[in-house]
Amino acid sequence: MPRSTSPLQPHPDRLFPADPGVRAIARRLYEAVRELPIISPHGHVDPRLLLTDEPFRDPASLLVTPDHYVTRMLHASGVPLAELGVGRGPLPEPEARVAWRHLCANWAAFRGTPVRYWFDAELSEIFGITERPDAGNADRLYDQIAEQLTQDKFRPRALFQQFGIEVLATTDDPCDDLSAHRALADDPSWSARVIPTFRPDRYLEPAQAGWRDAVTRLGEVSGVDTGTYVGFLCALEARRRHFVEHGATSADHSHLDVRAEPLPADEAQRIYAAALAGTATAAEATAFRRNMLFEMARMSTEDGLVMTLHPAVHRNHHTPTYERFGADTGHDIPVQVEFTQALQPMLTAFGTHPGFRLVLFTLDETVFSREIAPLAGFYPSVYAGAPWWFLDAPDAIRRYRRAVTETAGFSRTSGFIDDTRAFCSIPARHDMSRRLDSGVLAELVAEHRLDEDEALETAVALVADNPRKAFKL
Amino acid sequence: MPRSTSPLQPHPDRLFPADPGVRAIARRLYEAVRELPIISPHGHVDPRLLLTDEPFRDPASLLVTPDHYVTRMLHASGVPLAELGVGRGPLPEPEARVAWRHLCANWAAFRGTPVRYWFDAELSEIFGITERPDAGNADRLYDQIAEQLTQDKFRPRALFQQFGIEVLATTDDPCDDLSAHRALADDPSWSARVIPTFRPDRYLEPAQAGWRDAVTRLGEVSGVDTGTYVGFLCALEARRRHFVEHGATSADHSHLDVRAEPLPADEAQRIYAAALAGTATAAEATAFRRNMLFEMARMSTEDGLVMTLHPAVHRNHHTPTYERFGADTGHDIPVQVEFTQALQPMLTAFGTHPGFRLVLFTLDETVFSREIAPLAGFYPSVYAGAPWWFLDAPDAIRRYRRAVTETAGFSRTSGFIDDTRAFCSIPARHDMSRRLDSGVLAELVAEHRLDEDEALETAVALVADNPRKAFKL
Amino acid sequence: MPRSTSPLQPHPDRLFPADPGVRAIARRLYEAVRELPIISPHGHVDPRLLLTDEPFRDPASLLVTPDHYVTRMLHASGVPLAELGVGRGPLPEPEARVAWRHLCANWAAFRGTPVRYWFDAELSEIFGITERPDAGNADRLYDQIAEQLTQDKFRPRALFQQFGIEVLATTDDPCDDLSAHRALADDPSWSARVIPTFRPDRYLEPAQAGWRDAVTRLGEVSGVDTGTYVGFLCALEARRRHFVEHGATSADHSHLDVRAEPLPADEAQRIYAAALAGTATAAEATAFRRNMLFEMARMSTEDGLVMTLHPAVHRNHHTPTYERFGADTGHDIPVQVEFTQALQPMLTAFGTHPGFRLVLFTLDETVFSREIAPLAGFYPSVYAGAPWWFLDAPDAIRRYRRAVTETAGFSRTSGFIDDTRAFCSIPARHDMSRRLDSGVLAELVAEHRLDEDEALETAVALVADNPRKAFKL
Repeated sequence: MPRSTSPLQPHPDRLFPADPGVRAIARRLYEAVRELPIISPHGHVDPRLLLTDEPFRDPASLLVTPDHYVTRMLHASGVPLAELGVGRGPLPEPEARVAWRHLCANWAAFRGTPVRYWFDAELSEIFGITERPDAGNADRLYDQIAEQLTQDKFRPRALFQQFGIEVLATTDDPCDDLSAHRALADDPSWSARVIPTFRPDRYLEPAQAGWRDAVTRLGEVSGVDTGTYVGFLCALEARRRHFVEHGATSADHSHLDVRAEPLPADEAQRIYAAALAGTATAAEATAFRRNMLFEMARMSTEDGLVMTLHPAVHRNHHTPTYERFGADTGHDIPVQVEFTQALQPMLTAFGTHPGFRLVLFTLDETVFSREIAPLAGFYPSVYAGAPWWFLDAPDAIRRYRRAVTETAGFSRTSGFIDDTRAFCSIPARHDMSRRLDSGVLAELVAEHRLDEDEALETAVALVADNPRKAFKL
Repeated sequence: MPRSTSPLQPHPDRLFPADPGVRAIARRLYEAVRELPIISPHGHVDPRLLLTDEPFRDPASLLVTPDHYVTRMLHASGVPLAELGVGRGPLPEPEARVAWRHLCANWAAFRGTPVRYWFDAELSEIFGITERPDAGNADRLYDQIAEQLTQDKFRPRALFQQFGIEVLATTDDPCDDLSAHRALADDPSWSARVIPTFRPDRYLEPAQAGWRDAVTRLGEVSGVDTGTYVGFLCALEARRRHFVEHGATSADHSHLDVRAEPLPADEAQRIYAAALAGTATAAEATAFRRNMLFEMARMSTEDGLVMTLHPAVHRNHHTPTYERFGADTGHDIPVQVEFTQALQPMLTAFGTHPGFRLVLFTLDETVFSREIAPLAGFYPSVYAGAPWWFLDAPDAIRRYRRAVTETAGFSRTSGFIDDTRAFCSIPARHDMSRRLDSGVLAELVAEHRLDEDEALETAVALVADNPRKAFKL
Repeated sequence: MPRSTSPLQPHPDRLFPADPGVRAIARRLYEAVRELPIISPHGHVDPRLLLTDEPFRDPASLLVTPDHYVTRMLHASGVPLAELGVGRGPLPEPEARVAWRHLCANWAAFRGTPVRYWFDAELSEIFGITERPDAGNADRLYDQIAEQLTQDKFRPRALFQQFGIEVLATTDDPCDDLSAHRALADDPSWSARVIPTFRPDRYLEPAQAGWRDAVTRLGEVSGVDTGTYVGFLCALEARRRHFVEHGATSADHSHLDVRAEPLPADEAQRIYAAALAGTATAAEATAFRRNMLFEMARMSTEDGLVMTLHPAVHRNHHTPTYERFGADTGHDIPVQVEFTQALQPMLTAFGTHPGFRLVLFTLDETVFSREIAPLAGFYPSVYAGAPWWFLDAPDAIRRYRRAVTETAGFSRTSGFIDDTRAFCSIPARHDMSRRLDSGVLAELVAEHRLDEDEALETAVALVADNPRKAFKL
């Protein structure tokens, strides 16, 4: 069959285990969850997308350019990021078409990756594409999608409703006024819940470029003088309150490690002053960040924001690409992480606090069975976060369930989070998770480790209950 | 089907691979091992249980309270440890019933965990329970089990015999006089082998609270003055001899790492004296412990005790729980471990010594393929220990076999150890291991990587020969 | 069936997944690749073997003595290395027979290991053995193989052609004159491509015994004075050119870590001079090696040699064995490795250089999903190397594909390398890889994650295209 006519037709049994007996069980479990509303407690969709509801511009800016999962793989395959429009504003149509052609011509590079899987589902189920993309049909597919994007039913709000999203959390800077969230909440024509997430990383890292400006701005926005450490804490507390008032239920943190260790107050003050003066050492800056992570946990026990940790990524690994194209351009590379000892001070202080929730994510799979599951299997506050980023993929998700469940069961896991900025991939991502969990549960049933009524109840809980509980939704 | 009448009925094919062809092979292999006697070379049953043979008190104190696998999961699910009777003596009946109700009401929390699997087998096969526990039938099940516990055939010795245990090793303090072991051995009405294991951890860690008192007591019990380093070594040697005379075949060690590195004799003496004087630094205490681990290996080559290592756990992670409820209450959390470089001095000294046996256990799965299997695949003294604690579970056991076998085969593995203080779970744990190894071997046969006659011989060897060889039984 | 008559008969479906539906797909994929020529871009065959084409001496020296995969397992099983002829020259016939008997008598020790799998294929397909080796038939099998080794069709060149090898890369010292490669290339009766690989480890490690002599010899062979750092660099560049002129396409590096970090030129000069004077510290020696790894990458961008990294092995773990039997005797034990931060300076400098290729191998599986796949999924220069050494085995290969593919696809992987000094195992190793990749792809097809036409194209690419691209063949 010539490639130009290869069909694109996602199979109803996709991602289910191959064994016919297990697959039959998986189908039954999946039927119970496939249509449940989407709860998305952590992601990177811009709320203004839904507020303005402007049509998407073109296939490339919708599906290629902003998605570093896609652009990094094309880059690895030899396509310069510049030809994909990375780091630029809206592309003129000819350039958008070039970017799209690169995607189609390199379709084979995505074989076996979840990006390919999500694309198949998106192209087929949202845009009705029936051909596998390739160099030959790239322009035709571009035109087909571009035409649809002009239609009302392909505008963001229409898609959002078609996707069945019940709650969507965004990720936001502490200084954001959250006016988009407020406007959406106040819009009588809009009923879904779109809530912010407090993400204060850059305010907690005195060693990072721009920290002093950030802290100054924090003071302005919060109306609290951040010239002192106490003022800095108050300003953060004020912004957290602002987020809570706008519906936030969680605060997200992503640093190189998760060590959370309080400093004596006078030492914290001293380092803070030194950092403002530009004289803090690297070791002091790290100690201060670790003190602040502890403080964030303390604030969580007071204002109720769920604390989520996404640690251990070496950001912007390839300096020339960072300098030319900016951050989030596909070369953030994971490193080892350690939770047991790093979190001990925080968990000894707050681990059994009734209001505290701590969701642990990792890109280092070794901690699933060794550290995260044992922590989630003792502390009522700790949840094993769903596989994230590079691990948000079929085999990795199965490994996660097999590594975590035997120590922490299903109830101590967060439920799925899509963590995406690729808006159209949201339903495919949640559907993938539901299919995989159905398969994992079906295997337990087939091996007589769980009865089918229990598996069914668990499948539903993982979609409907776990994220609500872990994220206080 | 309403939950209150859900049946509890362990399936004859449980834990076998789902594929019908593979399952048929697994059944045949399992038939050859299912009835073989249990050899338990490492565990935590109290020998006095068998000596006094008193009836078990109630379902909660038998199955819930002392088992930190169970209580930690209930704690994670929101049940205070105090309501489970943790850290207390015998519970009055109403409180025992409360603890039991918590277990039944939270039955779903254990889905997918081995605890659930063991409970199913215990309740069904020992106590004849035919209903899945839940909040509704908790009291009825309590009464049913409590009634049985008054019968002679549910007393410890009767169960021990019903379980088919041939050898049971306990874990004991070096100062224990081993009178219980002696009395059992001298009891003409008792025929099984119940042997002690030498576990000297706290005598080897000068930095731990109570070390000086322990060392003093060691001197008293051994009749050797432990005021000097040489006396300390002699006292340890004397206690090891005492254990050997009472049937011990192994010494077990659990420290934060496994580094074993000899100190010059005068340096060891100096640190020992400083430790007694309370002036040893943390670094000196660690160096001393590493010196002692080396000395323990040296003593093993002389007295023949198999050396077993269970390292890399951060004990008592949640300080408030430790202070209120004591040790072994469910919040020991694993950390990374390293064997290759840490064991190099010990293995260069004793690795090919004909009398030396070293069994390596880990909670950090990364070392199975990277370090343990290569070590066991060269050194005739080294055995890859069975998956332990958090890893003593179906999927983890499969991962272990797949990670270790390709480098070290089956013959270099220790055979199963149950390592349990949950007496009634012993047969279920060994049965689980036999089912899983049958399944792993069946997969090798189905993929034509092993002939079935070889798989059968291997399945039997793993149960009957490997533990005897690794533990010198 | 008595063991003495157990048949040896590799099954046509060996290593395919057990599920009948998946197996049928795997068979179809495998048919497309089973007869493709072997490309062996990295290994340890001695080119003189092919140059002189002398008959192999006896079964033990062909299949046992030089293969540390085999001898280490026999050693672990209690056979002294001396009885296997390790570290000696040619064995007298009676001793060769003793070594062979040890192999046959310990056949069971290899169950579940790839060595056993390779042996089955070699014995059956090359030597027509139809009985499983054991203590009883050892001498008979010895005689049968020994007789065949006298025949012309069992001489190295005849086997090489029978194996269908198209390219074979050897591993060579920078001072090697490569005359054997030259002579083979000039031999009109020889048509296959046998190319050298530049392996400069010991020239880059000033802390290792013999470094100064090596550097002196490097100067002599290259005709460049290595008395200065600049001369040393020039000499290495000259030898790399010599290798390129003799067909080399890659340079291989194996150090304890992969940190590559340039030193200021004067600092490098200073340490180099100190090292020659014998006064460099351990830290300086390490810094110098890391500087040199960076320099090797720089040279690769200039002369085009693909850079391959095989790091993180603690060599010669058991000192007494090393002292008596030498290196490569089965006790090289892996340690943890880190790529993300260690390679950052090199990849920021050369990661997008059009001529640069970097193939990353590991014995620490944790880096497959965490570091190698993300690096290969961004940098066009980086390839995820095939599983190597202890990981070159069925389950490990599957784990590799499942860990790498979801992030880096198939196109960013190196294709199979056999890395062997066991000449007769080459076809079995490549065949194993083809069977396993067919199985992995078949599972993707069965789960509807890939269409079968794509799987077929991928299976062929992994054998025919990927190694050519990654190794510039």
